[in-house]
Amino acid sequence: MAGFLDQDFLLSTETAKRLYHGTAETLPIIDYHCHISPREIAEDRTFDSITQVWLGGDHYKWRLMRAAGIPEDRVTGGASDWEKFYAFAQTMPQIIGNPVYHWSHLELQRGFGITTPLTPESARSIYDEANEKLKSCSARQLMRRFQVKAICTTDDPADDLRWHEAIAADETMEIKVLPAFRPDKAVNVEKAGFAAYIKRLSVVVGRELSSAEDVTAALLERMDYFHARGCLCADHGLDYCMYAEPNSAAANTAFQKAMAGGTPSKTEADAYKTLITAACAKKYAEVNWVMQIHFGCLRDNNKPAVAVMGPDHGHDAVNSRSGAENLAPLLNAFAENGGLPKLIVYSLNPVDNTAIDSILSCFQGGGVPGKLQHGSAWWFNDNRPGMRAHLTDLACNGVLGRFVGMLTDSRSFLSYPRHEYFRRILCELLGEWVESGQYPNDGAYLSKLTADICYHNTNHFFGFGV
Amino acid sequence: MAGFLDQDFLLSTETAKRLYHGTAETLPIIDYHCHISPREIAEDRTFDSITQVWLGGDHYKWRLMRAAGIPEDRVTGGASDWEKFYAFAQTMPQIIGNPVYHWSHLELQRGFGITTPLTPESARSIYDEANEKLKSCSARQLMRRFQVKAICTTDDPADDLRWHEAIAADETMEIKVLPAFRPDKAVNVEKAGFAAYIKRLSVVVGRELSSAEDVTAALLERMDYFHARGCLCADHGLDYCMYAEPNSAAANTAFQKAMAGGTPSKTEADAYKTLITAACAKKYAEVNWVMQIHFGCLRDNNKPAVAVMGPDHGHDAVNSRSGAENLAPLLNAFAENGGLPKLIVYSLNPVDNTAIDSILSCFQGGGVPGKLQHGSAWWFNDNRPGMRAHLTDLACNGVLGRFVGMLTDSRSFLSYPRHEYFRRILCELLGEWVESGQYPNDGAYLSKLTADICYHNTNHFFGFGV
Amino acid sequence: MAGFLDQDFLLSTETAKRLYHGTAETLPIIDYHCHISPREIAEDRTFDSITQVWLGGDHYKWRLMRAAGIPEDRVTGGASDWEKFYAFAQTMPQIIGNPVYHWSHLELQRGFGITTPLTPESARSIYDEANEKLKSCSARQLMRRFQVKAICTTDDPADDLRWHEAIAADETMEIKVLPAFRPDKAVNVEKAGFAAYIKRLSVVVGRELSSAEDVTAALLERMDYFHARGCLCADHGLDYCMYAEPNSAAANTAFQKAMAGGTPSKTEADAYKTLITAACAKKYAEVNWVMQIHFGCLRDNNKPAVAVMGPDHGHDAVNSRSGAENLAPLLNAFAENGGLPKLIVYSLNPVDNTAIDSILSCFQGGGVPGKLQHGSAWWFNDNRPGMRAHLTDLACNGVLGRFVGMLTDSRSFLSYPRHEYFRRILCELLGEWVESGQYPNDGAYLSKLTADICYHNTNHFFGFGV
Repeated sequence: MAGFLDQDFLLSTETAKRLYHGTAETLPIIDYHCHISPREIAEDRTFDSITQVWLGGDHYKWRLMRAAGIPEDRVTGGASDWEKFYAFAQTMPQIIGNPVYHWSHLELQRGFGITTPLTPESARSIYDEANEKLKSCSARQLMRRFQVKAICTTDDPADDLRWHEAIAADETMEIKVLPAFRPDKAVNVEKAGFAAYIKRLSVVVGRELSSAEDVTAALLERMDYFHARGCLCADHGLDYCMYAEPNSAAANTAFQKAMAGGTPSKTEADAYKTLITAACAKKYAEVNWVMQIHFGCLRDNNKPAVAVMGPDHGHDAVNSRSGAENLAPLLNAFAENGGLPKLIVYSLNPVDNTAIDSILSCFQGGGVPGKLQHGSAWWFNDNRPGMRAHLTDLACNGVLGRFVGMLTDSRSFLSYPRHEYFRRILCELLGEWVESGQYPNDGAYLSKLTADICYHNTNHFFGFGV
Repeated sequence: MAGFLDQDFLLSTETAKRLYHGTAETLPIIDYHCHISPREIAEDRTFDSITQVWLGGDHYKWRLMRAAGIPEDRVTGGASDWEKFYAFAQTMPQIIGNPVYHWSHLELQRGFGITTPLTPESARSIYDEANEKLKSCSARQLMRRFQVKAICTTDDPADDLRWHEAIAADETMEIKVLPAFRPDKAVNVEKAGFAAYIKRLSVVVGRELSSAEDVTAALLERMDYFHARGCLCADHGLDYCMYAEPNSAAANTAFQKAMAGGTPSKTEADAYKTLITAACAKKYAEVNWVMQIHFGCLRDNNKPAVAVMGPDHGHDAVNSRSGAENLAPLLNAFAENGGLPKLIVYSLNPVDNTAIDSILSCFQGGGVPGKLQHGSAWWFNDNRPGMRAHLTDLACNGVLGRFVGMLTDSRSFLSYPRHEYFRRILCELLGEWVESGQYPNDGAYLSKLTADICYHNTNHFFGFGV
Repeated sequence: MAGFLDQDFLLSTETAKRLYHGTAETLPIIDYHCHISPREIAEDRTFDSITQVWLGGDHYKWRLMRAAGIPEDRVTGGASDWEKFYAFAQTMPQIIGNPVYHWSHLELQRGFGITTPLTPESARSIYDEANEKLKSCSARQLMRRFQVKAICTTDDPADDLRWHEAIAADETMEIKVLPAFRPDKAVNVEKAGFAAYIKRLSVVVGRELSSAEDVTAALLERMDYFHARGCLCADHGLDYCMYAEPNSAAANTAFQKAMAGGTPSKTEADAYKTLITAACAKKYAEVNWVMQIHFGCLRDNNKPAVAVMGPDHGHDAVNSRSGAENLAPLLNAFAENGGLPKLIVYSLNPVDNTAIDSILSCFQGGGVPGKLQHGSAWWFNDNRPGMRAHLTDLACNGVLGRFVGMLTDSRSFLSYPRHEYFRRILCELLGEWVESGQYPNDGAYLSKLTADICYHNTNHFFGFGV
């Protein structure tokens, strides 16, 4: 029997252990997609308690606590930090098999050197020990502890990037903190708040935006602003992957209806969204950014709860109608519109895995290794079975050796062990293939595969230069 | 090599064996969803042959026999009991990997003490031995042999529950046999027989039903009748999960068209079905029943065969358009309409697993542990890989420790070993997690998790009080 | 640790090894679905280099090379045979986990006796050795090396089958090479080229075709022609599984629009396609052919690339909207229209597995063992996990013992090791079930199951008589 979360966690073969400890373990981290606040890095935030840094913005944990019967007061409400921490400790022993169980213990181990399993019985001493250690620790120090070399935050085209500028100007800060361009609010024409957002964007570019083409021009201008501040990538979040034949008239009908407070039809909205997205893709190709597209989300499902708590509080889910079949004509539209950018595609719905891999393969080429990437198992899928399924599907219908690997998608400075989790799962899978005779036991090739997927491919693909 | 179906069947690790033999094996059974005839329990039915109790109503076995080339005469036709039994024995060696192969042998072992594999060669002696043992055995005695404490049958709102009353009044019967409320015929407005059913329901409540609101009122009245007879839960079977914005006019158009012998449009039917279902959910919440919703079924597909044999003879299938994406707005409609009841959701389509888990998590809360449950792998999925996939997905996106576990969904007094099958699969999974270092080897927590999922959670969630 | 691709490749248990080496390994091959050119067999083609026979028509390999960053010149362009071979050797070490990695090495071993892993370092010596051995080898000799007894090619109803006639008349050729009837171009009324194809078919049958009924009559006539030349099966390739209520008027509207150079609506096209397909199915039942239906394909996705290279160059993908739910009414239409033929159904989308198995089971019967088959994991799914998933799903919801097993779907004389790959995966799965106590360790039954699935079921089901 393996020890609980010991040094060989998730590594069952000698080959897996050799690849992990010999290659993967000591590689630094590039976290190319996260939701960390750049302000907290610029100001080098400190934390009063582990509850703040660990439970403060983590809807994964909130959802589990609610399902375990914890009242909202101790989830996101007014209870004390200790009460919330204890409520989470009550939840932990019940979530066997959940990635949060593994991540939380990895975070206690790597962040605080605490190896005791978290239970109601151990909660008090763990809470006190973690809080004591947090006193001598800041945001940047946590990043350094995990050997983070570079991260990309998530930023709106209308944002001013002042915190990124401050970090870049700070000579004491050696970790790259780059913005990422996320134009969702300008794309999702059917959502509440669109008109208000367009007005905000209009103020930023200093002119009125009265057509889909105007919005496009404003976004392209903001890309230049982001580009000048080191941005290397963009991210488009879609409830479903849409596609519509190019139709400027329909797109502008959608735009006009939305600006007038109305709701465009689905056909009109799809025309608008396709137009804007294709125009962005064209510019990304020109400036050599990586474009990320993720789709398959049902957002804000429990309206009474969202009315109280707001978005991003654990009320999003997987969309069974994710529109993966539209990915093919959408990418074709990019290809016919001046060329595909480097691309990473994710779906929240794991049943899309094979379809995505097979579609991306149709668009590879041009001599760019791994130009189209099927992004890591994501959000509801970044668990051990989900990551194995993603990696296996990718290996079966693509070139695993060119994969750009893991991201945290997280709001917390403590979540970098998700990279360790991914690396262990990857090494275990490689080990299985080697030890069952499916790949030669050739240390040089295996070590290169491992290091490329864990670190180097990301560095080269985005052009981080670290 | 493990022995065939021996005491450690499906248990490969020491932890799994310890959890199964030390905890799960001896727990009694609550079968909260089945199709057993209450009359057969009230009259304590006896059986002339194993064919009657084993093959008489089991469309799982019929489908396999047909695919193995057995003519219908020996499946559901006029052949003798022995001929049918022999035909099934011919089928058995060909169905390697099928759960029926495992269940059938577990049933022979646990029901009759027969450990010989069923083949054409062994058929005669097994048939004779089982029939001999059946002579001294009745419906109730079979239930006692499997330590059944309580079951819920499946009953129509128009049923009179006289057999349930008879059982409750029978002082020699210690097993709880409760009705469950299944209003499908009042919901499925687009199906043949709707108008006739509404007339039947009208007679039962003693007044004309001339609107969707009238049907709702009749159903609520019948819930009171069921409630007074110990009912704890309801079940809604849907071909696909529907949702429509609240629209009484459209709902009543559907109702009127159907009553006049016409066919409502899909939009109208969805409005009617959503309205009735939401009204039922509201009342379930008030009386604290558990609501079950299962969807994703294509029924009566082979019309020439159904014309000869009738429904429920093995001609239903998985619906690839199960409407899982509508589950989110449907549950939101419940939440906005007076609050969610305790809920168990199942889909016949296993590709919905992650979507369902993720949607249910959006609606957890209110301090009720495990208020929304993703029901056990069901019908076409209650096999070993299907159960493992369900449990794994649930663990990854929910709180496994709150799961209410297995049901048989069966018409047979011999199918209780499906609970044993589930418990072995559960213990094996827990054992894998522990022995690979993913959960501490803490006997007290593990034993509690096991016992809760196998028995106690169900008892508390429904309020069986056994 | 197992040796790389040694004699026990993919066989980890003693039972698996015994079943493979004792039964499966030495059985001959019937490849009932492939795209081999009958002319190359009739002329007994020889090959100048391994590049020609190995990379010449293999879009699996092309896709991987593109994703690895190989420029098109060395994929399908004007580079030399050696340059292309070397480019593939560069790709190989990166595709760990891909079936092409396994197949390619099996082909080097079985076709050329070469056991060295293919890398850039080993490329030159492997290239020279393989080319040397190819000098003394022809198409027929390759088929004999793999013990091929019979194959079915893929042929258009308008084809003249002269090469099949030549092979049949050649007394030196003992391997059966039969045509298969693939009427896609007459069915896909919405695709470019339909009108031109109908004119071609019109010439072949010697009369004008001016309605859907005329097309049907022409196809039935061509079936007679194929039947007289030994044809045993047909294949229908559908982008999605369609169904429409019988409607000759709508079908003919589609036909007339397409013939006039227009585009029918989806509803009209579905009516046409359903009508033609059901008429074909009726005739297949009469002449006792096996009908194959495969669906779930998005074709020619990257239009700029297809414009340069043409179809079948690696730009097809899995369709997430494969229409599996329509399979049930489509088969019912066959059943109501004179009876179902023997049938093999495949989807490119692996998420359809359970739905397909469950639908087919509804139509089994009539005393024909395994009358409806869920075809082998196919195209994007013919990898180890995909095959295991298919076999497992089939075992759980069908009768595995009646399965007709593997096909290559290939254009290459070197791809027969895919049958070996399948057989190893099958034996491994059977071994797992036996050694974990899920099936008795009964050598006679296990050996029969293995031999039936690997060879005899196919021979009997199609009626090859070999």
